[in-house]
Amino acid sequence: MKLVLATSNKGKLREITELCNEYEVVPYTDLIEAFEIIEDADTFKENALIKARAVYQALDNENVIVLADDSGISVEVLNGAPGVYSARYGGTNATDKDNLYKLIDALKAKGVKSSPAYYTAAIAIVSKNAERTVHGWMHGDVIDEARGEGGFGYDPMFVPAGYKQTVAELSSKIKKNLSHRSQALGLAKKILKTL
Amino acid sequence: MKLVLATSNKGKLREITELCNEYEVVPYTDLIEAFEIIEDADTFKENALIKARAVYQALDNENVIVLADDSGISVEVLNGAPGVYSARYGGTNATDKDNLYKLIDALKAKGVKSSPAYYTAAIAIVSKNAERTVHGWMHGDVIDEARGEGGFGYDPMFVPAGYKQTVAELSSKIKKNLSHRSQALGLAKKILKTL
Repeated sequence: MKLVLATSNKGKLREITELCNEYEVVPYTDLIEAFEIIEDADTFKENALIKARAVYQALDNENVIVLADDSGISVEVLNGAPGVYSARYGGTNATDKDNLYKLIDALKAKGVKSSPAYYTAAIAIVSKNAERTVHGWMHGDVIDEARGEGGFGYDPMFVPAGYKQTVAELSSKIKKNLSHRSQALGLAKKILKTL
Repeated sequence: MKLVLATSNKGKLREITELCNEYEVVPYTDLIEAFEIIEDADTFKENALIKARAVYQALDNENVIVLADDSGISVEVLNGAPGVYSARYGGTNATDKDNLYKLIDALKAKGVKSSPAYYTAAIAIVSKNAERTVHGWMHGDVIDEARGEGGFGYDPMFVPAGYKQTVAELSSKIKKNLSHRSQALGLAKKILKTL
């Protein structure tokens, strides 16, 4: 079955392709030209649906299944920020590093070295017959420095509960066992089998 | 092994006793008179430690292991409130119902019928040789009405991710599989085996 991903984010593409290796995973930009999708909802779930629906409609092919991931990090001392704004926390065209250092600065401005935080991943699946969403979460702490080279996004400053290392310092095998995205994809795969 | 619980909350006592049926579980109030413990920390983890340490010291017996649970609910549209104030959201001597209806009123005041939310349970274990903490989480939505008779706390207004019913409407078996407290106790039991 061909699974079209409604993303051009390289980190997400890599992780989802790895975690869904029983499917033929194709970024939508391999099939049609990239286009802008306005993700202006208040929740990860609605933003994931916006992306999956937009790509499904643009593809105009009843035989594809589109999968979209919307994810982000919520920090307790920042009352849940950056949340759904995680990908553009450092500005409209912010890089991972821009976002990461803005969050480190925000912790420092609060006068804390760390804070409880959690990642959310919402995955939407849109096909001819179905629109479904699932979620996964990973809890831990954000710290006021970046450590490690693995992962992407806020991984270098995120220490999962029960660990001392950041996600960027842990092996990709451990990240696969722990991550919000892995958990959500595990549920998504159960849905894919029923479509 | 005797496990002394640093709580007199009947809902917690019932759930922890059920989930730890391989241990002799005793509320601390069976051993000494109940006393006030000021839980004034900013995190569930620190509050659980405060309770477990206070009871361990009061018991003055090197052969006991004390286990404390601090838990609560964090609501997205309320920027994480009530959080560590969950047990006293409706006032110092608030009942479960006082807290629940205050949270329903807070959702209504925000003009929403539901919001993403999550429960956190922090469990602290204090013994002669060790102080350890573990966590568990359960995500879902809070809704603007109370439904069902099971569980306790905010369970009648909490719908776990992937379900339509509130925790208070689900069977206690399903709650055991899902709950923040079950997950944290699963990790706590691994620690208990090493003490």
